[in-house]
This record gives sequence, C-alpha cells and structure tokens, in this order.
Amino acid sequence: MATPMTTTMTATTKLGVTMGDPTGIGPEILAATLATAPAAWRARLRIYGDRAPLERGAAAIGVTLPADVECLGAGIGDRAVFGKPDETSGAAQVGYLEAAVAAARRGEVAALVTAPISKTWARRGGFEFMGHTEMLADRLGARDVAMLFAGPRLKVVLATVHLPLAEVVTDLTTARIRTVLELLVTSLVVDFGIAAPRVGVVALNPHAGEGGLLGEEDADIIAPALDLPLPPATLFGPLVPDAAFRDAVDGRYDAMVAMYHDQGLIPVKLVDFDESVNVTLGLPIVRTSPDHGTAHDIAGTGRARPISMKRSLALAIDMVERRELHARRA
Amino acid sequence: MATPMTTTMTATTKLGVTMGDPTGIGPEILAATLATAPAAWRARLRIYGDRAPLERGAAAIGVTLPADVECLGAGIGDRAVFGKPDETSGAAQVGYLEAAVAAARRGEVAALVTAPISKTWARRGGFEFMGHTEMLADRLGARDVAMLFAGPRLKVVLATVHLPLAEVVTDLTTARIRTVLELLVTSLVVDFGIAAPRVGVVALNPHAGEGGLLGEEDADIIAPALDLPLPPATLFGPLVPDAAFRDAVDGRYDAMVAMYHDQGLIPVKLVDFDESVNVTLGLPIVRTSPDHGTAHDIAGTGRARPISMKRSLALAIDMVERRELHARRA
Repeated sequence: MATPMTTTMTATTKLGVTMGDPTGIGPEILAATLATAPAAWRARLRIYGDRAPLERGAAAIGVTLPADVECLGAGIGDRAVFGKPDETSGAAQVGYLEAAVAAARRGEVAALVTAPISKTWARRGGFEFMGHTEMLADRLGARDVAMLFAGPRLKVVLATVHLPLAEVVTDLTTARIRTVLELLVTSLVVDFGIAAPRVGVVALNPHAGEGGLLGEEDADIIAPALDLPLPPATLFGPLVPDAAFRDAVDGRYDAMVAMYHDQGLIPVKLVDFDESVNVTLGLPIVRTSPDHGTAHDIAGTGRARPISMKRSLALAIDMVERRELHARRA
Repeated sequence: MATPMTTTMTATTKLGVTMGDPTGIGPEILAATLATAPAAWRARLRIYGDRAPLERGAAAIGVTLPADVECLGAGIGDRAVFGKPDETSGAAQVGYLEAAVAAARRGEVAALVTAPISKTWARRGGFEFMGHTEMLADRLGARDVAMLFAGPRLKVVLATVHLPLAEVVTDLTTARIRTVLELLVTSLVVDFGIAAPRVGVVALNPHAGEGGLLGEEDADIIAPALDLPLPPATLFGPLVPDAAFRDAVDGRYDAMVAMYHDQGLIPVKLVDFDESVNVTLGLPIVRTSPDHGTAHDIAGTGRARPISMKRSLALAIDMVERRELHARRA
C-alpha cells in the first residue's frame, strides 16, 4: 500500500466496493484491506455487501472489522457459508453489484472496486453477462472498453480477450487496436500521470512475421494502427513478442498492447504474480479489481492473499485523484 | 559454467563446435568460451571454422586464443570482416557446418555445438534449409525432432515452431504432441538425469478452453496425448497457460510442452534471458546452440555476451557424458 492519501480528492468523492460472492474469498480479502486502510480512506468507501459475511471474513483472518465501515446490503447474503455457494449467495452478489452500478449511474461513486463473483452462481442469480467488464460497459453506456493489467513491473492491455486462439486472427482489426491504443494512452496520461508514455505494441506472429514468412497480420493489421502519431505517446511496434516483454520489464516501455489473452497474461503472471490489478479502460468511472477468482476451496481459511485487493483499492483512489486533478486543470 | 568436467567421458569422445558466420559474433563468443574452458574440455573439442577470424575474435575481447585449440577450416573465412557479411563468408559458414555434419555421420564427434549462421548469407552460400535444426534432421536421418530451450529456471519444448499464429491450430495434432512428449521425457531422463520427471503440458486456449467455451482443441487434441502414461514421467495438463509457467518457475514441473513458438519463448526470454540453451531432441547426436543470432551490428566490438555459448558447450559435454553413462548401464 505504497500509495499515500493525498488531499486532492474532494470530500464528497466516494468509491464503491462490491463484496462479490459472499461464500468466496471476497469478504476476507476485503476485511484485510479495510482493517489496514487509513481511516481517511475508509471514510470515502461504501461497501456494497452484507455486514455479517464481512465480519465473518474479518474473524477468519483474526482482525476486527473497523466500526466506521459503511456497509450497504439487503441482508440476502447474511447466512452465506464460506465455500458453499448456492442460489441465495448468487442472488446476493448480483444485488451488491446492481446497487453499486445504480449508485455509479447516479454519480454517487466515482469508482468501483469489485471483488470476484462466481460466474456460475451469479448467472443463477440473474446475471446475464460474461463478467463484470461486459456488465459495466452495458449499464454505464461505454461503447469501447479494454482490459488493462497494471502491476509493479508490467502494464499490459489486451486487444482481444476471451476468445479461442483460432479466433484471434479473424477477430483482430486495425480499428480495434487503434481504439485500445487510444484508451491506453489516455489512461497512462490521466490515470497514471505519465506525461509522455512509451507504448510497445506486440506483434501477433513469431519474429513479428519475419517479413511475411511467418504471417501477414503484423504488417497488414497491426502496423497500420501505428501509422498515425498519438501524442503525447510514442508508439513502438509491431514488436517481436518474445523480446518485447523482456524489454518492457527492463524499462524500455511504459505499457504494452498484447494481441491476445495469453500473450499478455503469461508475462503478467510471471513477473507480477498476484500483485497485478485489473483495470477497465473506457468507462465513465474508475473501475479496478483483483486479478483472481472466488477461490471457494480456500474461502474462510485466511489463506487468500489480499495483496491484489489492497492494490486495487489503492490504485482506484490514485486514479480518482488524478482524474479530478486533470479535470480541474482542463 | 557451473557444470564440472567429470571423468566419465571417454578419452576418444570428441565434440564438434561450428563457428557459424565468421563476420558475426560467433568468433568472439567462441573465443571467450575457449579461453575460459578447462584444458581438459578443449582437448575434446574440434572447432569447425578458420583460425584467423577466431584469433580476431579473441583480440576483440582482449584474450589470447589458447594454443591447444584444434581448428579445422579450409581458409575460406580467413578474410572475413566483422559486420560485413558477403558471399565468401556465406560459403565459409556452410563449409564449417558441412564438415562438422560429415564428421558426425562418420561417428567422429558425439555432439555438435553450433554458433549462429546468417540465414540470408548461408542461403547465398548454398544452404537450402530453414535453419540448423532442419539441416541436421535431414543429414542425420532423424524423422522427428523437437526444439527444447533449457535454462536455469525453465525447460520448454515446442510442439510447433516457426508458423504464423493462424496455422498453429490447424498444424497441431495429438500424434505430434505425443512424439514431442516422448522425445522430451527421454531427454530429461537420459540427458538431464531426472529420474522421474514432472512434465507440464500447456493448453492452447485461454483458461485451457474453459470447458469448450474458449476452444475445443484442449480437450480434443491435447488431452488425448496425455491419456496413456509415459513412465517414468508424470504428465500434467492441459494446463491453464497463464498459470502454468508461473507454477513451473516455482518448481512444480521439471519441463513444459508449449503449443506454439511465443507461448514458450515469451516465458523463456523473461525468466532465463540470455542464459537459455537451444537443444535439438531426436537427433542421433547431441546438439546444442546459443539462443541468439549473428548480431552483425555488434560483431567485433566485444559487447556480445558469451553466456549462452558457454552454457551450450557445458550442456553438450554434460549430455555426452550422461548418454555414455546411460549406454554403459543399459
């Protein structure tokens, strides 16, 4: 939690935090985060979730839930049992998320930090999206969104996300890559405070296609997305994939655009492990989340590492402050 | 150079080392390796390359070439100039390789360690293969070969190698994955002395296909290759790609099978950087090579790091010894 609370965030700026599946590790990683957060941070937070599972999460890790935590729940998740998801916990997690999104639509929260939901049980509870990202894009009216993984060593945004590998090549377009680049550069400047970002765009094919011998897409689809400048960023690419991420870790680039899920996620998990935060670019609000699932198998044991949730909250606060600062300057 | 010379290698076992492109970094990384190798190692080596560029390589890094180095060259590369490849240097590097392969066919060398060739200039010099691996497979009568990258933190073999990403899915077969597994397990046991290897087989699709939602190939093509046991190895997979390499680095697996070039090479370059050695599995002889190219742009400056060449030689000696030991026991 290296990010200090600064005084730029206005007193009225609230952040919403959803508890996610109350039978998963959400309550305990959230309790760990709240217990160690400065009181000034907690005063800004609204927890969308029931107090009972949050208190059980605190007990599981041997902490007391601070009394100043503002919990907004309808009580549906009160009887949730760790590791035992059911229709009720499914409905509860959908309710938390719907309430948080409604608050975002009303402008009551400037950010959402979302603990993991169980896709299976959320669907049984009435959730009709692939995941958080798709739901938020729909409800908050965002046409183009992108998934960024922000860790201490690497920042990687994905041009395509949840697709079979065979469909990546047909799905990828110059327009999509350009859109992702624009979302990324805006975020690097506004959210991360990088004045002149150096962005590496990774090729699709091995050796970046080797002049067409190993594929045409690098020249035909990716390169045209880099033709026009994108100030204040400098764009590099299409880069040879096996060298690009090594160079990024060595500091040559501020962020990378990966063409497909595993091209980006393999490096992220290797070098940033569980310290990476999932950021949704393109929404009208800030949205961050830990980069892991509900982990029902270890829920309630206190074994879940809260580091990604802590970083998600710290980054959300940072981003809200930077966006406010940027808006005042504009 | 952690691998010690042991006394198991018979006095008659010779290893061939090709100089590769005499205008690239081959001469200087080879000179660096020879200058620091024990005299007992050098006595086993035959350098297929001309002495003049090797001496200039030694001078470039400020060492004297040991007098006991056995150099076999026809003098074609004597006038090679660092960074200035031409038809003559192209013909020279092909000549070195042809002479070394002929010696291997006659049983005079049990291993080949190959410094990088320039594919462009080697072709102009009469070379008609994609690279070393294809040439060696052809000349030494190997039906199935596989490319293994062996580094201090990861060992990764590739099921497909130099293909556009779009062709990976159509090229991949259960039979090929099984063949690669067999070659890998044999090598782990015989060449690396791992009695009961744990081998991780990485899925093709994100989340290992997520039950078919993100692709069918993991269940239809990869899983059947793991159906039959392969003693003394234990096989794991198809593994979720973004977690698999992290787990491998953490010690859960001894080696990995990657489905395509960048899936394997991105992790290798990230965690083993330039310490990885390229090993060809499936040949009747040992073959290792450094995992980099000719680097004409820095040839003769002494800036090339010889670590991968040193490790290639050390690993080849190790592998020759282990194969001899294994043959005597059998």
